[in-house]
Amino acid sequence: MRDFLPAEVNAREKVLSTVSGVFESYGFGPLETPAIERLEILQGKYGEEGDRLIFKIAQRGAKATEEADLALRYDLTVPLARVVAEYGDRTGKIFKRYQVAPVWRADRPGRGRYREFYQCDVDVVGPEFGLADAETILVLTDALAALGLKGFEVRLNSRKVLRGLLESYGIDPARETDVLVALDKFDKIGEAGVRKELDERGLDAAFLLLEVSGPEDELRRQLGRTEVGRAGLEEVDRLIDLAGPLVSDGAVRFSPMLARGLSYYTGPIFEVYVKGSTSAISSGGRYDDLVGMFAGRSIPAVGGSLGIERIIPLVSRPEEGVVSPAKVLVAVLDGDSPGDALGLAAELRAARIPTEVYLDEDHVGKQIGYASARGIPYAVLRGPKEKEQGIVTIRDLQTREQTAVPEGDLIAVLRDRSST
Amino acid sequence: MRDFLPAEVNAREKVLSTVSGVFESYGFGPLETPAIERLEILQGKYGEEGDRLIFKIAQRGAKATEEADLALRYDLTVPLARVVAEYGDRTGKIFKRYQVAPVWRADRPGRGRYREFYQCDVDVVGPEFGLADAETILVLTDALAALGLKGFEVRLNSRKVLRGLLESYGIDPARETDVLVALDKFDKIGEAGVRKELDERGLDAAFLLLEVSGPEDELRRQLGRTEVGRAGLEEVDRLIDLAGPLVSDGAVRFSPMLARGLSYYTGPIFEVYVKGSTSAISSGGRYDDLVGMFAGRSIPAVGGSLGIERIIPLVSRPEEGVVSPAKVLVAVLDGDSPGDALGLAAELRAARIPTEVYLDEDHVGKQIGYASARGIPYAVLRGPKEKEQGIVTIRDLQTREQTAVPEGDLIAVLRDRSST
Repeated sequence: MRDFLPAEVNAREKVLSTVSGVFESYGFGPLETPAIERLEILQGKYGEEGDRLIFKIAQRGAKATEEADLALRYDLTVPLARVVAEYGDRTGKIFKRYQVAPVWRADRPGRGRYREFYQCDVDVVGPEFGLADAETILVLTDALAALGLKGFEVRLNSRKVLRGLLESYGIDPARETDVLVALDKFDKIGEAGVRKELDERGLDAAFLLLEVSGPEDELRRQLGRTEVGRAGLEEVDRLIDLAGPLVSDGAVRFSPMLARGLSYYTGPIFEVYVKGSTSAISSGGRYDDLVGMFAGRSIPAVGGSLGIERIIPLVSRPEEGVVSPAKVLVAVLDGDSPGDALGLAAELRAARIPTEVYLDEDHVGKQIGYASARGIPYAVLRGPKEKEQGIVTIRDLQTREQTAVPEGDLIAVLRDRSST
Repeated sequence: MRDFLPAEVNAREKVLSTVSGVFESYGFGPLETPAIERLEILQGKYGEEGDRLIFKIAQRGAKATEEADLALRYDLTVPLARVVAEYGDRTGKIFKRYQVAPVWRADRPGRGRYREFYQCDVDVVGPEFGLADAETILVLTDALAALGLKGFEVRLNSRKVLRGLLESYGIDPARETDVLVALDKFDKIGEAGVRKELDERGLDAAFLLLEVSGPEDELRRQLGRTEVGRAGLEEVDRLIDLAGPLVSDGAVRFSPMLARGLSYYTGPIFEVYVKGSTSAISSGGRYDDLVGMFAGRSIPAVGGSLGIERIIPLVSRPEEGVVSPAKVLVAVLDGDSPGDALGLAAELRAARIPTEVYLDEDHVGKQIGYASARGIPYAVLRGPKEKEQGIVTIRDLQTREQTAVPEGDLIAVLRDRSST
């Protein structure tokens, strides 16, 4: 887990607010859910490995030795499903929300991974397959473009394509998860690895691998043999048609190999790659059954997320240490009148100039050093001599130039300098 | 615990960003710490009751049955102390930070209290008593004023005043906490209640009560008898002198009765009341020993917080349900060309007009109803007939007026309307 000092918070916030701005421009509204959910809400939604990685909260008081009943949020999708089930009358028939918030996983940390990290999700709950799926791809690639990233490849598939293939080869649909889990590792372990894993799981699925990595027209022919396969192809083609022309600086491509690990997807699934990156920086898909698990009636949904922790270092470089949001430091030169410094700072702030007062007792050199180290551009000095003459000294901390100005001109001069 | 739907998030965010803006105008920078801390960091810092209310995280894997080693953040002050100890070389000799973030307490919920709630803290780590204490009071009252609150009463005391009194009456300093805990309940249980509680704790402290509620000149005389009492009075007088004249629309008053529950305060303590409120909406004080517990060397600090969960309902009234950030809804009228709707929406967004596309298949009345319910001011309709004629219909959802405009004028007309 990490602490973020002010310069890092500022850099992260800038990225997050750009992204939120794009989400809002599409009409997505912000949702906030608590960090703690009831354990039963989370359990069984993320697969076996997921269940193991949920942080559980110990029971309180006399029940301390009993099984945990609460847990920390593991992702933002399951809480969304719970919210829609709970507040359906208020969220309406179509609910478009985004959420940018930390989640927690009891993973072995390391390799740039953390046990607390931010997720950044957009989802549309309500509509069946169609425009909503296209918009999900568009809003995410737009957000990436707004961050200055370029050259997107949207890899698109449908769970129905995979299901159609299995069906066309007479493989038990109950084995679908095994195939998905193996296929999902293709990028990591290569074709030979996937083949081995399928073998180990007792699946004679070499033909499947050939199919998804072979010529597309052959694959399309094979998919045409089952209803679900045809439906999958239709979804893929429709999305390429709808979203393809509108993806900024990129293309949408049918990627029959794409599996996505999560078990709750039911229709289209996608991943976004940026030029030169070997792993996806955004992904998502349709999950028509998850919300229904909580609501007790079928509620279709589609959504996606930005891999924001991976994206932030790509697009921003925070300054080191602590930076001050202030533009001016009022130095305290005269032991008898620190109250005057507070008053002068209040005047500057009232004129919308962010201003710090030096809060300790140190000689002026140290005060100037403090301002420089924090990137404050100007120091204002008003010692006993200046007071007598009714003037103030402005020190430019970059050029080290000092200018004396009449007290009454101070605000105008500082404003003038800040605007150039 | 609570979920916040978009309208509520917006209302809360508005308050929080006003407050952060004031904090930044004083040069405080944002800090983010993780939700999870090591349990040993938190334990023993909040008193006996506090220890009981810490949410503990169960051990993972094979260690599941062992004692918890992690816990959820209980406040923002202890994490700050840990950060300063850990990153002292980066935070520098004076570290001014704010943090607005949730904390968790395993309290019995109810009466407007929640187990997850936001705290909103400003702290100055480094300087000894003086300007920093005054600035803490000023930045908090300024933030309250920026939220539109008026008529502040800052009640001020010093732990040294209380210690001085005990010493002057020969009470064992080890009993100080007992006296503080009893005095702190004055607002809740009244003078008789406090007297009873002191009796029960075996403290013959009726005189103490008389003293703190009696004439100030008598109290000052009594305090003058001990060194620590004199130091406490000096702190109080100095702060009234420094901060008093600058508190916007309010006054700073010596309140010898003020005790504050938390055990870690060492010097001045204060509470801010707003006209008509019976409980404090902001509070704070100096805690010179807490940071040192982590850093292994003495590091003075002063800070305070806004009772933001109590303040939000005072200053904002969220709209009901879900509001859309969009200004325009593009209706989908023509089953064959939903892609056109996506394209038109993209054009409007490129012109910085936040735009939704209706993402489901419904007749136009339902689409208009969706926009109205979400407070979207305009709907844009472009059916087959309009397309033929190269026009677009704009519907004002408040007046229900419809205007047909040439396609090329759409953006200009919408911009024009939004600006009036």
